[in-house]
Order: sequence, then C-alpha cells, then structure tokens
Amino acid sequence: MDIQKPTLILNPTIVQRNIARMAAKARQNGVAFRPHFKTHQSADIGNWFKTEGVTAITVSSVSMATYFAAHGWRDITIAFPVNWLEIAAINALAAQIDLHLVLESVETAQFLQANLQHPVNIWLKIDSGYGRTGIVWENATQVLAVGNAVTAADKLRLHGILTHSGQTYQVKRNPQAIQTLYADVLKRMQHVQHALLQHGMADIKISIGDTPSCSVVTDFSGVDEIRPGNFVFYDMTQVRIGSCDVADVGVVVACPVVAKHPERNVLIVYGGAVHLSRDYDALPDGTPYYGRVVLPAENGWSAPLPETYVKSISQEHGIIHTTPDILARINVGDVLCILPIHSCLTADMLKRYQTPDGVTYAMMPGIYG
Amino acid sequence: MDIQKPTLILNPTIVQRNIARMAAKARQNGVAFRPHFKTHQSADIGNWFKTEGVTAITVSSVSMATYFAAHGWRDITIAFPVNWLEIAAINALAAQIDLHLVLESVETAQFLQANLQHPVNIWLKIDSGYGRTGIVWENATQVLAVGNAVTAADKLRLHGILTHSGQTYQVKRNPQAIQTLYADVLKRMQHVQHALLQHGMADIKISIGDTPSCSVVTDFSGVDEIRPGNFVFYDMTQVRIGSCDVADVGVVVACPVVAKHPERNVLIVYGGAVHLSRDYDALPDGTPYYGRVVLPAENGWSAPLPETYVKSISQEHGIIHTTPDILARINVGDVLCILPIHSCLTADMLKRYQTPDGVTYAMMPGIYG
Repeated sequence: MDIQKPTLILNPTIVQRNIARMAAKARQNGVAFRPHFKTHQSADIGNWFKTEGVTAITVSSVSMATYFAAHGWRDITIAFPVNWLEIAAINALAAQIDLHLVLESVETAQFLQANLQHPVNIWLKIDSGYGRTGIVWENATQVLAVGNAVTAADKLRLHGILTHSGQTYQVKRNPQAIQTLYADVLKRMQHVQHALLQHGMADIKISIGDTPSCSVVTDFSGVDEIRPGNFVFYDMTQVRIGSCDVADVGVVVACPVVAKHPERNVLIVYGGAVHLSRDYDALPDGTPYYGRVVLPAENGWSAPLPETYVKSISQEHGIIHTTPDILARINVGDVLCILPIHSCLTADMLKRYQTPDGVTYAMMPGIYG
Repeated sequence: MDIQKPTLILNPTIVQRNIARMAAKARQNGVAFRPHFKTHQSADIGNWFKTEGVTAITVSSVSMATYFAAHGWRDITIAFPVNWLEIAAINALAAQIDLHLVLESVETAQFLQANLQHPVNIWLKIDSGYGRTGIVWENATQVLAVGNAVTAADKLRLHGILTHSGQTYQVKRNPQAIQTLYADVLKRMQHVQHALLQHGMADIKISIGDTPSCSVVTDFSGVDEIRPGNFVFYDMTQVRIGSCDVADVGVVVACPVVAKHPERNVLIVYGGAVHLSRDYDALPDGTPYYGRVVLPAENGWSAPLPETYVKSISQEHGIIHTTPDILARINVGDVLCILPIHSCLTADMLKRYQTPDGVTYAMMPGIYG
C-alpha cells in the first residue's frame, strides 16, 4: 500500500463476495434485491451490483438519488420520509426515473398530490418495533388513514409497506436472537398488510432492510423485497451482532503511526474522528472502542492484532492500546489499518476508496454536489 | 433562510465578535495569537483574522497547512506529531513558508534532520496532564533527550514547548476549575522550560492552546503564545464547560422537519450523523444528547427551545425530543436549527458555510484536496 495519510482501503475480493452472496440469497428466495447504496455512495461500486443483475436500488437522500440517477440507475427508492423542501429535485427525478418515495403521514400524501408533476410509487413507512420513525405497526387508524390518502391521490401509486428493523443492532453475537426479532417484524408487517387488504388495498408488497436480518435469515417467505446496505462492507458492529465474520469486513482505514508511548502501551496514529467517524462500540468486557487494528498485508490486511484496539480518538489523533510485544515491533512511520466500527459513516468521512493495488474509486461528493 | 437540506448556518456577527474578543485578550496580555484553523478550515473565515492583525496560524494536518499556504498564510504551525510519510509535502511547505513542526521523539528529530531540505522551527510536544500524546512533563530524561536531538540537528531550530491541555474539557460550568487546571499546566510547562534552560537551551517559548483556558483565563503571564481554535464558533460542549454563553455559539445546522410523532413528543428532522457528527454530550440530568434546538430567526436564530434536544441520530435522521406545546406549533416542512455539540466536527461534516443572508463560504475540500 502506498499511504501518506489516512486512506480508506477497500478489498474488492471481499466486497464482491459480499455482494454475490446477498444477491444469490435473494435469487434463491425469489425476493427482489434492492440494495441500499448509502453505505458505499459510489457509482463505481454500484456497477459491481449490475453484474449480479441488480437494476433497482435504495438510497437515503434526494441528493443520493440524483447522483445515482446521473450514473444510469433508473429505479430508485429514497428510504427516508419525504422532505417537502426538496420537491423541486423530487420532481426532476420523477421526470426521469421510476421513483419510489416513503411516507408516513396524510399531510405528506396531500403535499405530494398537490406538488408533484409526475406520478411516483409510494411505500408506507412502518415502525415495526425500532421506534425511530414510521407509522407504529399496531396503529391501524393511522395506517388506514395514510393508506387511504395515498390511494385517493392520483399521482401516488401505493406500492407497499417498508420497514427498517434497527432493533437487530442491539444483538450480541446471537444469530438466533436476530431470527426471533425478524420473525416478529415479519408478523407485524403481515398484520399491517392484512389490515390494508381488508380495507380494499390489495397487492401491498413488504420490504425489509436491515443487514443483520438479511445476513442471518435464510427463508424470506412472505417478504417481497430486501434492502440491506451495510453488508457490502460490513464492520465491527456487524461482527459484534453476529451478522458476519471479521474476515467479511471489506474496508479498513490505513493510518500512519506518529508516536509511541511504551510506558503505557499506546501508539498514536494519524487517523481520528474526521477519518474514522465518532462511532464506537464495546469490547466483550464492556470497554468502549473505536476500531480494531490490523496490519497491512499483500492484497489486503492481517487478522486483528490481539488486545489491540483504538481506545479513544480526537479530531485527527487515534489512540491505540496494544501489548508490549506488538508495540516493540511497530515504529513511527509504519502504517496500521483500522477495522471500522460503522463502515457507512467511515466511508462517508473519507469520500474515496483505494484498493491495495492503488486503484481509486470516487464517492458522491457530499450533499451539496 | 433558504433551506432545502441540512445546511451549516454561520452568524458572522457572533463569529467576528468571538475572533475580536480573543485577539484583544492576546494583545492586552502581550502574547502571540496563533489561532487554530482546524475548526473552520476556511480561507474566507481565515481572512476575518487578518483584520485583527493575525499573521501566524495553527493547523492539525499537512493537508491543512498546504491549503492555507495556498491561500497566502506564511507562518504555520502543524500542531500534530510529524507524520514521516508526508515528508515530501513537508519539504514543499518548508520551501515556501515559515513552517513550525511539533515532535516528541529523538527518532523523529533524526528523521527530519536526515530528510528535510530546508530548516524548520520545532516545538516539543509536552503532555501537561491530558494523557493523549507528547512527552510527559515530569519525564526530564525524555525532555532533554529530545531537546538535545533537536539542538544537535542543524535543520531544526528549537523554538519552544507546546501543549494542549484537553483535560479542561471535563469541566462542568466551572470557570474556577478551568483556572486551577490552567495554573497547573503553566507550572508544569515552566518546569520543563526551566529544565531545558538548565541544560543550555535558552529562549524556549511556551505555547498553550485549549479554548476553555484561553476563554476563561485573563492573565497569561509566563506564556508566549496561545493557539485556541474552537472559540471561533464555540458549541454546546463549551457552554457545558463554562467557556462561553449559548449566545456565543456562532454556527447551527438548519434541518428540515420530515415527520411528527405527537404520541411520544418526537420530531424527525433530515439531519443525522453525516451532518451533525456523532459527538454527544450530557444534559444536566445526565441524559446523552446530540444538540440543542433553536428556531430560525431574522439574521440568525432564537434562544434554545426549552426541553427540546436531539436525543438520538442515525446516518440521516435526527430524532428530537420536545414538549407537546412546541410540537403542536411545528409542522412537517418547517426548518429547525441544531446547536452542535462539537462545532469542529460538525463543520468538517458539512464542508460549507451559509450566512442567514445566503452568502456561502467554502472550506478546504478534505484531506485528498
């Protein structure tokens, strides 16, 4: 690796394997695969999905939809409650692609009907237990009110119900717990689907999205579409949940070592919050940490170094706890690589990928374009 | 404000007042004012310091030094342990500006002597109690070893000792506690200065940097230079510490409201971890939060809304807790503004400023330039 400063390194072998595995699982289940592109935010990496037959994608902002539409994607779901203030950009998108929007209120349905220039597909956002946003699945009154508002609007085509069951992110190395959460979510989504059907809204598709469920569950009966995103890179959070093995993590941040503190088993790297992001997780003993540490290797990186992790970060500094043996083998001027806690945020910080061979891939340039 | 998506709003009146106040304090004390530009990272905002007579600045990376050198700054300290892997860029800078580097090891002094093409000024990085990096102030052996290595190198001019006393960030609304910490730091730095003097190293300047100390302390006797950075914008962390009043915070993130949940007093805004950063702090009752909420107003924003704060964030969502009264007055499609927890990171996320009048200021485009 040719590294001068913190650099996001992507292993194409791992990433393409992650994509192929999820695409194969969707095919085997006969469910639509509409991957979330907010994790990689890259037209180049997006192309790797095309070789797996992917033609429809998910994004998290109007800006991201505009970027991927400009790179040839023609079927895009913006999986975020409609932002009224971007109606001009939404109209521009609806004029050129098959646009899917997500909403959760009568007000937004009415706003779209009044302001759209082209028809769009609508998914009702359902809160299936995560508690972030969406219509609470048990709230039949609200589900039907919004469903009816959409049905009554000739610019809106009610396509289905969509959920992100982020509650799976609390799991600790327990695939069975993910299966159980998933089964609950599916039951709740089917309950909503049934309520809509009873009131004349037929052919309501079910779309689910979280990477833990999509990684662990093998039978998607009852679901029409999956929208995982993070699986493309995975990260230490997904390893902790039990979604993947550490060998499935497809990106690291390469960081130059700038100082050594043998008296307290600490190495300082150039690589901090503006490179890794501020996201943290807990080691098995409960200690908070900001990433595991690996060594650069030919075509990629090593297994995690034992007892070695990023114990704190500031804007540009990473403070790495390690063992006396490892510390003695590493020098100022060496490069260490950090397995990220949350690869979506880390990628968003660095805005560019580099392979171990030095090939670079661009990302979308931020929300201001 | 003309807002479509999350936008970093800067109030020039507040920011210019913050700059003028700190510059006046430095002048009154007869200390050099070398502000840290990592907070704003903007050539435009940098120009506001020139009207206060500032000619020397601090940055946190070689990339940032290169950016500000390209915008006319001719005296720059890179307040981060020298990154050997950027020696080519360091040599390019040393050829054109008065460059100050920070080091903490004999190895780095020897590396620079062997690889520099032009002489540079050197500050020894001292750990005066923060425990992040630097030579521990009590470790006279290491202080003298590094001091001697610098003195022996004809390309290195030993200029002084430098510290960042980040321990002040633990303070809670207690200016007296900051004063006490500052007094300890000064004593420790003078101890190091004296040890160097006793071994023939004279005219060693003392540089200190943290915003809490620089905001609260009024007498800088014994110090030669101050390097605060965050004070240009301040933020909710500095309000909590007691460095400033909430009316001194000079930036907010304007966020569109996209959903309402009256049953749990929650508003959802478009504005998440990729806009605000993942940094959090604690409310007086210990509840973690990601920002206070204000309303847009003519020429700026309101005082914080009572009992209203960002209680959690995901990649693009901000989840705001509020009161039933406030919730009833705010609608989907409105704009709320968030006072950031840590303005340095928030600015780094958004990479562009906009004034309430709609003037925009660019930031440096990230470490890849």
